[in-house]
Amino acid sequence: MATMKCIVKARPEKGGLAFEEREIPKPSQGEVLIKNKATAICGTDLHIYNWDAWSQGRVKLPCIIGHEFAGEVVEIGAGVKNIKVGDMVSGEGHLTCGFCRNCRMGEGHVCESWKGIGYDVDGCFREYLVHPEMNTWINDADLDPALGSIQDPLGNAIHTVFATDCVANRVAVFGLGPVGMLAVAVLKAIGAAEIFAVGRRNQYRIDMAKKLGAQHAIGSADTDPVKYIMDHTDGKGVDAVLEISGNPNAVQDGLHSLRMGGHLVLIGTSNEKSTIDLAKDVVFRSTHIHGVTGRKLWDTWYKMKGLLASGGLNVEPVITHQFPFADYEKGFELMQSGNCGKVVLTF
Amino acid sequence: MATMKCIVKARPEKGGLAFEEREIPKPSQGEVLIKNKATAICGTDLHIYNWDAWSQGRVKLPCIIGHEFAGEVVEIGAGVKNIKVGDMVSGEGHLTCGFCRNCRMGEGHVCESWKGIGYDVDGCFREYLVHPEMNTWINDADLDPALGSIQDPLGNAIHTVFATDCVANRVAVFGLGPVGMLAVAVLKAIGAAEIFAVGRRNQYRIDMAKKLGAQHAIGSADTDPVKYIMDHTDGKGVDAVLEISGNPNAVQDGLHSLRMGGHLVLIGTSNEKSTIDLAKDVVFRSTHIHGVTGRKLWDTWYKMKGLLASGGLNVEPVITHQFPFADYEKGFELMQSGNCGKVVLTF
Amino acid sequence: MATMKCIVKARPEKGGLAFEEREIPKPSQGEVLIKNKATAICGTDLHIYNWDAWSQGRVKLPCIIGHEFAGEVVEIGAGVKNIKVGDMVSGEGHLTCGFCRNCRMGEGHVCESWKGIGYDVDGCFREYLVHPEMNTWINDADLDPALGSIQDPLGNAIHTVFATDCVANRVAVFGLGPVGMLAVAVLKAIGAAEIFAVGRRNQYRIDMAKKLGAQHAIGSADTDPVKYIMDHTDGKGVDAVLEISGNPNAVQDGLHSLRMGGHLVLIGTSNEKSTIDLAKDVVFRSTHIHGVTGRKLWDTWYKMKGLLASGGLNVEPVITHQFPFADYEKGFELMQSGNCGKVVLTF
Amino acid sequence: MATMKCIVKARPEKGGLAFEEREIPKPSQGEVLIKNKATAICGTDLHIYNWDAWSQGRVKLPCIIGHEFAGEVVEIGAGVKNIKVGDMVSGEGHLTCGFCRNCRMGEGHVCESWKGIGYDVDGCFREYLVHPEMNTWINDADLDPALGSIQDPLGNAIHTVFATDCVANRVAVFGLGPVGMLAVAVLKAIGAAEIFAVGRRNQYRIDMAKKLGAQHAIGSADTDPVKYIMDHTDGKGVDAVLEISGNPNAVQDGLHSLRMGGHLVLIGTSNEKSTIDLAKDVVFRSTHIHGVTGRKLWDTWYKMKGLLASGGLNVEPVITHQFPFADYEKGFELMQSGNCGKVVLTF
Repeated sequence: MATMKCIVKARPEKGGLAFEEREIPKPSQGEVLIKNKATAICGTDLHIYNWDAWSQGRVKLPCIIGHEFAGEVVEIGAGVKNIKVGDMVSGEGHLTCGFCRNCRMGEGHVCESWKGIGYDVDGCFREYLVHPEMNTWINDADLDPALGSIQDPLGNAIHTVFATDCVANRVAVFGLGPVGMLAVAVLKAIGAAEIFAVGRRNQYRIDMAKKLGAQHAIGSADTDPVKYIMDHTDGKGVDAVLEISGNPNAVQDGLHSLRMGGHLVLIGTSNEKSTIDLAKDVVFRSTHIHGVTGRKLWDTWYKMKGLLASGGLNVEPVITHQFPFADYEKGFELMQSGNCGKVVLTF
Repeated sequence: MATMKCIVKARPEKGGLAFEEREIPKPSQGEVLIKNKATAICGTDLHIYNWDAWSQGRVKLPCIIGHEFAGEVVEIGAGVKNIKVGDMVSGEGHLTCGFCRNCRMGEGHVCESWKGIGYDVDGCFREYLVHPEMNTWINDADLDPALGSIQDPLGNAIHTVFATDCVANRVAVFGLGPVGMLAVAVLKAIGAAEIFAVGRRNQYRIDMAKKLGAQHAIGSADTDPVKYIMDHTDGKGVDAVLEISGNPNAVQDGLHSLRMGGHLVLIGTSNEKSTIDLAKDVVFRSTHIHGVTGRKLWDTWYKMKGLLASGGLNVEPVITHQFPFADYEKGFELMQSGNCGKVVLTF
Repeated sequence: MATMKCIVKARPEKGGLAFEEREIPKPSQGEVLIKNKATAICGTDLHIYNWDAWSQGRVKLPCIIGHEFAGEVVEIGAGVKNIKVGDMVSGEGHLTCGFCRNCRMGEGHVCESWKGIGYDVDGCFREYLVHPEMNTWINDADLDPALGSIQDPLGNAIHTVFATDCVANRVAVFGLGPVGMLAVAVLKAIGAAEIFAVGRRNQYRIDMAKKLGAQHAIGSADTDPVKYIMDHTDGKGVDAVLEISGNPNAVQDGLHSLRMGGHLVLIGTSNEKSTIDLAKDVVFRSTHIHGVTGRKLWDTWYKMKGLLASGGLNVEPVITHQFPFADYEKGFELMQSGNCGKVVLTF
Repeated sequence: MATMKCIVKARPEKGGLAFEEREIPKPSQGEVLIKNKATAICGTDLHIYNWDAWSQGRVKLPCIIGHEFAGEVVEIGAGVKNIKVGDMVSGEGHLTCGFCRNCRMGEGHVCESWKGIGYDVDGCFREYLVHPEMNTWINDADLDPALGSIQDPLGNAIHTVFATDCVANRVAVFGLGPVGMLAVAVLKAIGAAEIFAVGRRNQYRIDMAKKLGAQHAIGSADTDPVKYIMDHTDGKGVDAVLEISGNPNAVQDGLHSLRMGGHLVLIGTSNEKSTIDLAKDVVFRSTHIHGVTGRKLWDTWYKMKGLLASGGLNVEPVITHQFPFADYEKGFELMQSGNCGKVVLTF
């Protein structure tokens, strides 16, 4: 019986990750078996690692965590028609039903009964995983697996950017974590007129945003972003704000940085509620607000494939660190510190 | 020297309206002179009548109030090319510059320097008014002037309904004042799948909503709208909520009545801020929120013309009262009471 | 062994339909077994009946024909999760792969490998059929099966109407066969400003178009449609033309009936090519042309459900005849004559 | 009385251009007076120079030709509010009414009564011109006038590219004249997945397309473009074809190079009609065709401003030659030869 190594969250406490040997699964009807080449650590994994309130309410232990991956198909289950052994693949980590109104209407990111791998069900921090054919994405054969493994957060960034019209428009990105940085790279690739990157005080990330193409990169700890943006847009504001920090102050600043008729896209989340002057900041200014979660199935993935093919999407700098799978603890420590972009584990 | 009667707000106090005789103006370059046939009282006029906080901050006295009208062109100024004497017209009451980015991009409702007739500059509660050709709308010659005079609020309703995709979708309208009622009629005319009309406790207006085509009409004082809507949509919620009341509770109820991926359109305003759980109610549910003000120039007006031509837009019941212009005080009293739809003054 | 009656096209010649007894199939993995309540005859069935050039090139004999149906689920196969015994259903007759780019992007009507029931594979003119769960559509329990069985052509009409923006716009429908009539009904339901229905010389259908809500209904044999439309639109033309006849003359007339910037939607087909002055009629006038085939999965079906729920979609008059399944030859004869709308066979 | 030099087409024959001295005009109500810095020669000017059939039917002689320009405002007429002396400007050469349905709905490129400067009325090949404020576009003060003067054809290219969704999609450009080359540059700037540039046999232009960012650049005289595109897209075809040559063969090739559900954008024109198999190539494949003319007012211009600001739009290589205004004949000769991109005359 062949076995594989898995990273399992077993105990309801901070940390509590351990390697376990498990049997390599067999693909069932409509599933494929994937041998991992690379897997990336998400902020969500860190939440589970730290066993915060969200994790405690959602994750059933023990659970193999992780949901960002790229690998090779080594076996296919009965009825699989579109994927074959040898295909290099990644997968949409939100398992969707494919049948509900939202799935059938191209809004599978809000499938009425989706489950996330790595928290609702076992995830991808393991040498082999099974995944439904319909949730699997075929990568170009020559795509670097490290890059392949970050398509989940890159997809978040793309979903966020395309939630409103950013091409040829002025856009501010609030929040310069990995998804924020990736959003800057995407904006650059599609011809945003001007990119304002707003971090907090992490100079490493502010510098990275500039390197990725932002014409303006500031830290809100030092510079009032609303004043800065207004000063650089003739007092009119930007066409769109992408709020990726979750900080309620950033939501306010974002609203106040928009031109009349502008669009605020929210993907960052907070435990705190926001108090908003809807009449002044939304109704009379005809502001649009868009909540974004996950990736559109499959609009986001096709846009990602297209942008990667264009040659204009420069995301490699965001992958700042790679470790062997066995050294996963180093990756979690680094993520904890914040002095990194995406951290990838390789097999 | 020919004169005309005007309703003037002269004193900074509650009430304080008076008839004044003024000289009939001459149309300047690019303007037309309109002889009024009908003019309607807006909630805004009531605010000015009551001299509330908004009015005190915005209206420069003395001011001829009023901004909803229909009349006949009796003289044209130099350079007027598209309108001729004898044309029956109404006018967009938001005077826009036509040159700023928003005007040039079809978002003149948020023109960077718009002024409103009836509060920023003199309005239409008078026998004759001049209006810029470019802000004038030619009515069908046989359009009832009373109906012509309510195109401003009907346009608000149309702008609200078309701010998201309501055709063949389930829609809830919160707030059954004149604009809310008109929104119900518009939804009926364009084939909304199911209309949930939510008033507060005014049975007159709840009944009116039913008459205008709502399949469901309830009062939130008696019936929990969120529970009602969920019970009647298999627990999924409606595709769109049109919030026309301005009540912060209705904003919350609206958010909680939406399906995942749904749209909340806000045209109602309040002096109170709203406290919103953006993560839970907007981001994770991929909710969209749209602020709406005024009418789109000229998308809203063309849609209005088209819907009036369709034969399917039944708005006459919303015009509940008509008075001669001289009896305007009766109209204001009635508006004050709330037991009415639109109140029109005729000439 | 239970058997069922099927209408089989067995011989490569005109006519050649026959009742055959076949074993009632068992649903495989992911399939449902449906007991038919009603099935409708499509023009395509008539093509196969007449064994025209298209049929000869496409249909492999023997073949159970038919693809429009409504029935009740009586058994479900392994893995079926969303449909249960007792559900009233219809089905999308284009079997799509669900995985290709077009399927995944909401353009399943041009799936890269779709197959049609009733010509590529066995169809629905039988007492029971199996159908993939993912291609099955749950009807409201109280939907009249006759109406349920015409959702395929009603879907064609809806796909055609929604291929451009018809709400509050002026629209001409060329071709008054069943799909054209249904398009008129749909246009009426969604508030088209003015509907011009253009038939050829069949007065029965021209009268039907008027009954269904067209303000104008003419026969091109008697009345020049371009002149008529221009005369009734101030010489500007309509916003959209829906070409449902396939007649190359109608394509020309359609192009010449459009306003500048207008949209021509093509669903009718012809064996003849069209000679078009692209510079004059398309480029300089900024005309848009949209080819339409099948139904969007599942946008069309959700719009259909919504419009049926609205109460404003009046399609019953289009179902002009119903026969018992055993009398199918009468149905084909009637279809052959053209003096009918939709002809439904009931079980 | 101050005078200026003008290039006048005076005689109805090939060539027939001459310098004339004319009085410098005064701006009327709503107009500005512009001192030219640069003006570019369009293919339309060449048509007029050659006095072809189109010119003979349209241009009233004598006529100052030319419509592409950039200059400085030196005087403003009465009523001008948004432009001031010293502003660097270009202008939309299609003078639109601003009032008709199309103008008011953002489709001013098909204004019901537009006139073109340089053929319907006097153009810009002169030292000073007057232009309506509402048709004038303020350039960034530091924009190179040569670049400013080619915004008319760059706008054509942008209008063409944005007529369908090219971002992250595979696109073929047929026709590598100046507008075709500019389209390649625009596609590169907005992240098209893959660009196929198809010229005829002019290697200079095929090489230029590669330099501007096309991954593939071929000449149809040597390489079958349909086969080439199919071979490089897994036999599926591109998402969009931009037909900028006007060659009827290119229209056919374009249709056959598209994926199912693809978009064909037509801006090239021909005196010949096209014979199209609408059933096979448009209806059953759900193809969309979009006619494009002029520039959208003002969507195209704002996109142009944004793309120029992005830093990603590399159009300078397309301006291959600049001559002093007095040497205009050299420019026309060069244009006649085809061995050039845009030719600019400077003041």
